[in-house]
Amino acid sequence: MTGGERTRLHRLPERGSYDLETVHSILDAGFLAHVGFTVDAQAVVIPMLYARSGQALYLHGSAANRTLQTLATGSAACVTVTLIDGFVLARSAFHHSMNYRSVVAFGTARSILSAAQKVKALHAISEHMVAGRWNEVRGPSRAELEMTMVVEFTIEEASAKIRKGPPLDDEGDYARHVWAGVIPLRTETGEPVPDSRLRVEVAVPQYLNRLKVGQ
Amino acid sequence: MTGGERTRLHRLPERGSYDLETVHSILDAGFLAHVGFTVDAQAVVIPMLYARSGQALYLHGSAANRTLQTLATGSAACVTVTLIDGFVLARSAFHHSMNYRSVVAFGTARSILSAAQKVKALHAISEHMVAGRWNEVRGPSRAELEMTMVVEFTIEEASAKIRKGPPLDDEGDYARHVWAGVIPLRTETGEPVPDSRLRVEVAVPQYLNRLKVGQ
Repeated sequence: MTGGERTRLHRLPERGSYDLETVHSILDAGFLAHVGFTVDAQAVVIPMLYARSGQALYLHGSAANRTLQTLATGSAACVTVTLIDGFVLARSAFHHSMNYRSVVAFGTARSILSAAQKVKALHAISEHMVAGRWNEVRGPSRAELEMTMVVEFTIEEASAKIRKGPPLDDEGDYARHVWAGVIPLRTETGEPVPDSRLRVEVAVPQYLNRLKVGQ
Repeated sequence: MTGGERTRLHRLPERGSYDLETVHSILDAGFLAHVGFTVDAQAVVIPMLYARSGQALYLHGSAANRTLQTLATGSAACVTVTLIDGFVLARSAFHHSMNYRSVVAFGTARSILSAAQKVKALHAISEHMVAGRWNEVRGPSRAELEMTMVVEFTIEEASAKIRKGPPLDDEGDYARHVWAGVIPLRTETGEPVPDSRLRVEVAVPQYLNRLKVGQ
């Protein structure tokens, strides 16, 4: 279910978008989630990497990770992903804004226990971050899998919000002598920094040149 | 208070940093917060802009904004800011990581009612986003101020986590023929896109050329 009671937007409905395709496209464009849960009435928000498969988001970490342990108890969690696309500079302070795409997803999580399912989820997260990487590196050993906790968060409700385009000023402000428009923002990759112990004959792999991040 | 009961790290203590200066420097480097609170036992995480002043974080939005209204009731909230600095590519899947700086701050918020205090907070947020902008644009009218809700979140406890540097592989994996190192990531600004109704004689202001984002 998408766009249920928890995510109905009460303001600026034109920025609310409820279709699943939009929700999924934003989740697939991002890689960093902010995961919220409640411990003794205290809200806690932790950044985590993720990958999506259908209505499931995979999260992973150390078996001792308290966030994952808490999520796995099935508490009502919230996973939010935000992509910032630009500063929107208007002619008045009031109409300044951001261009962005965000998803707020509500659901519950469970721990994945099967080694095969764990590997599948870790593979999905790895390929979502850096496609092509998984097949080149040493895969997880049995001991490493046991040290790794993997959680599957099932999206029960979700909503997307998107703002794009130029500033919208009050009609009386358009004559002002002030620059207005959009400053695009995006996440860029820099030149790969080789590890100091890298074997000299190993070149930067092709898949790192094709890397697209958060777009 | 910083590094209290709620934020004591139970894992990877070497990544935990509790000094206020580090917490503040990360908050000052970022501009996007993920704000968590609880409604009827449901955790909710909403992206918001912010600026810091001492131990206060200013948040703003429409007077009808439900997140701000809920925060202003004084519920135990969490504000998390995450800056992603790089993908850390190790020789094993297990040792892949991210370089990042994050702050998890716990506290409570109150609504700012005085018009002068609201303007001060809005000025701080504006200058934190795009320094130099505020003095050039039309400031908020009385009606606009009434339509704007401003909330001051007071940090009661906070912790920082930082990971930087190269991958750390198992000794036996260093001989592997696989590229390892760091792919730096950062938020970059693109060429300013002028509004279609911009007066032709208005040039891109100097302060936009100096813009530094999320660093």
